[in-house]
Amino acid sequence: MAKGKKKAFEGALASRAESFSDWYVDVVRKAELADYSDIRGCMIIRPYGYTLWENVRDALDRRIKATGHLNAYFPLFIPESYLTKEAEHVEGFAPEVPWVTHVGEEKLEERLAIRPTSETIICATYAKWIQSYRDLPVLINQWANVVRWEKRTRLFLRTTEFLWQEGHTCHRTREEAVEETLKMLRVYHDFLREELAIPPVMGLKSESEKFAGAVDTYCVEALMGDGWALQVGTSHFLGQNFAKPFGIKFLDKDNVERYVWQTSWGVSTRLIGALIMAQGDDAGLRLPPRVAPIQVVIIPIIFDATKEQVLAEAGRVRDTLEKAGVRVRLDDRDWHSPGFKFHDWELRGVPVRVEIGPRDLEKGQAMLGRRDERGKQPVALEKLPGRVAELLDEIQANMLRQAEQYRADNTTDVATWDEFKEVLENKKGFIRCGWDGTAETEALIKEETKATVRCIPLEDGDPPPGLKDIRSGQPAKHQALFARAY
Amino acid sequence: MAKGKKKAFEGALASRAESFSDWYVDVVRKAELADYSDIRGCMIIRPYGYTLWENVRDALDRRIKATGHLNAYFPLFIPESYLTKEAEHVEGFAPEVPWVTHVGEEKLEERLAIRPTSETIICATYAKWIQSYRDLPVLINQWANVVRWEKRTRLFLRTTEFLWQEGHTCHRTREEAVEETLKMLRVYHDFLREELAIPPVMGLKSESEKFAGAVDTYCVEALMGDGWALQVGTSHFLGQNFAKPFGIKFLDKDNVERYVWQTSWGVSTRLIGALIMAQGDDAGLRLPPRVAPIQVVIIPIIFDATKEQVLAEAGRVRDTLEKAGVRVRLDDRDWHSPGFKFHDWELRGVPVRVEIGPRDLEKGQAMLGRRDERGKQPVALEKLPGRVAELLDEIQANMLRQAEQYRADNTTDVATWDEFKEVLENKKGFIRCGWDGTAETEALIKEETKATVRCIPLEDGDPPPGLKDIRSGQPAKHQALFARAY
Repeated sequence: MAKGKKKAFEGALASRAESFSDWYVDVVRKAELADYSDIRGCMIIRPYGYTLWENVRDALDRRIKATGHLNAYFPLFIPESYLTKEAEHVEGFAPEVPWVTHVGEEKLEERLAIRPTSETIICATYAKWIQSYRDLPVLINQWANVVRWEKRTRLFLRTTEFLWQEGHTCHRTREEAVEETLKMLRVYHDFLREELAIPPVMGLKSESEKFAGAVDTYCVEALMGDGWALQVGTSHFLGQNFAKPFGIKFLDKDNVERYVWQTSWGVSTRLIGALIMAQGDDAGLRLPPRVAPIQVVIIPIIFDATKEQVLAEAGRVRDTLEKAGVRVRLDDRDWHSPGFKFHDWELRGVPVRVEIGPRDLEKGQAMLGRRDERGKQPVALEKLPGRVAELLDEIQANMLRQAEQYRADNTTDVATWDEFKEVLENKKGFIRCGWDGTAETEALIKEETKATVRCIPLEDGDPPPGLKDIRSGQPAKHQALFARAY
Repeated sequence: MAKGKKKAFEGALASRAESFSDWYVDVVRKAELADYSDIRGCMIIRPYGYTLWENVRDALDRRIKATGHLNAYFPLFIPESYLTKEAEHVEGFAPEVPWVTHVGEEKLEERLAIRPTSETIICATYAKWIQSYRDLPVLINQWANVVRWEKRTRLFLRTTEFLWQEGHTCHRTREEAVEETLKMLRVYHDFLREELAIPPVMGLKSESEKFAGAVDTYCVEALMGDGWALQVGTSHFLGQNFAKPFGIKFLDKDNVERYVWQTSWGVSTRLIGALIMAQGDDAGLRLPPRVAPIQVVIIPIIFDATKEQVLAEAGRVRDTLEKAGVRVRLDDRDWHSPGFKFHDWELRGVPVRVEIGPRDLEKGQAMLGRRDERGKQPVALEKLPGRVAELLDEIQANMLRQAEQYRADNTTDVATWDEFKEVLENKKGFIRCGWDGTAETEALIKEETKATVRCIPLEDGDPPPGLKDIRSGQPAKHQALFARAY
């Protein structure tokens, strides 16, 4: 019977191999992470998805604070006159901006944009707050909702409204701002590896892919389970592009008035999409223990004669684990079979499963299953809490190892254009090769293959001598990573 | 010199006795809690104010979760057709709602409101999620920004955009929903007392003051330092007022389809305003240790000859306190005098001040000052961490005691209309008296005195036999609390 249930349950998810995107939507909806709303492209983040987001958010927030930043909150509304102050910025965002024109029955004198990002309103404020070099650096982060009315939306990955953090810093010198840009890129990198078990590539974006208004955009790029890439975070060196139009000046140590140097950096609820696509498998979600809303689920195997005894022991195990600081759930729903529950919690990605039945009790044991690998093992009840703690660490480490291996296996150096196309079509993943650095070649490659320059990886350094552009044959300016991307 | 500095510093705050509202704005701005923005009635919450809000939010969030609720997130936008489904609700909120009419250059087919509260969009979603009694109760909370375009705004107390939490629950029975309404009221009450050291009155709102769409609105009402009242939280029993127009039905145990019973409840960044006005004094803010962003500030007394030694010891004290889990700041700014720093941190309400100077070092001690009461005492350095921990608890308890005493001293039972007016004019505070329960009397009293029915206190129970309405002389239906209110 358990097998039959299992089949029935697996049938509920679209095939990951046949249609990764149908599988993705199925996971999001059936694991109750999020749901569609009646507002175009806006999603509802359900309690299980939101608790996951809270854990992700809090883990990153601790790292943002540990590097000396504090949170603040700026208004949702941006006056039209602010948005238009930085030319590239307004060009980039204006087409996707919702405008508030009326309040109640009254027309507003100046239209208000719903923030797509907050550089403009924050810079207008910084101009008032900053007078002296003693006021620098300003290291502020904001957790907020932002809105971008994009044409094609996808749950978590690209939604009309999304939740994110946006750091906005001001510095005395160019060097200090560049250092901050890279420091926060590394914060994202380490956070992704250590909390989400996703090993991203750190790199520089091409001119065409950089943030509207930035001097340089750096990114963390991760590889998803279908071999497509996803930009999971960005860190921008803004130079003085905003400081000048907004007049953010300070009196320096030498009594000369100067413009500040700025950075901004952000990650969003897209991270939840990254988790699903990078870690999921045919059975559904796989969550790294550090951010899993439920780390351990206890499934009692109930028969009438032993029901009370089994539920009592399952309750004791839950209490013990809870006291040890484990996020644990006892699934005592009596209208579902154990088989249904196994697959339901598997779909939801819970890292560890504890089964307790009457035969286990006789032997003073429970069965321990892990989500990252198949199989289960008996564990003596008195050793369970210690073993669970170890297992959560093992799973966290193993998921990172698996993801590193996957990335290594799916990063291919190519030397010819044919090879490029062949790998992109059949193997997919990251393709590493020479690029002449021109927007023309970049556009040509995109047009012919839908692959884009994901980044110029920082770890690669200068291109090897003699490297040629994969498409134009011209001397390569960079060694770049290409991929099809979300 | 210290004295001169002090004078200069105190002069910076408007007199609390002469103009409480000027004093309030001064505290908000000079303690760098918040600042005005260029958008009408929208404020910027600065890092010190936002960290305070994070502590307040997290303390309440733990209590909301401990009572079985989970957080979720619903869209910012509410389609016009949703908002108009519940007649009283739309009437209450429509005049203050900002409308999004365009995105980029394109006009939307249906206008979208920026949420003033989320009952309508959440109910539309619940109608899809809930089918069976097994899906109940639904216990969801949301932390979000909402917008209400009110005519008169005031930092933290009434801002166009504000941050809040809104709980939205569905239940099988009326009894269960009423119980939830009162449970969350008590959660607010206990949270206010135990975390913010504010002892509120729990009560029922009059018909004229209840939430647009509720059957009953309960509130926690607190007394501010100027004798005015502030509604700091509300908990609504919604009955089936939303369930019916939104069609939130479930198949009950007996196979009959029924509408759910609902509640909603919320508190907002107004709590920060409550903290300032209930706890502040002539020198500025006074923060309860549990939510203070900085619990202990260390001020080194610097002379050239002993600077290194003093700073080293101050650093050691900071590290020790930090390790003990205390939120501590060492103020080593070398461009401010100790006197300036004392008053700066006093203004910001830091509960404990540690002074370390060369003479203290000779004696192996530091001076310990507390914000809730004047004076300072020497403490041996090795006893400092233990003493600080005790002191933080003492201050938390003392602030609650002080606030309870203040509320008791400023709650007056009156028996005649003349006495009512006299107390309201001169003593202020809560006035307890009989009310006939009619909207006419309520309106008359408000018109004549600007005092409103704050609530019918739950703890008072039925009115004493023979009690008369203070204004109409008719038999009192309730014993009510009146006050002028923000």
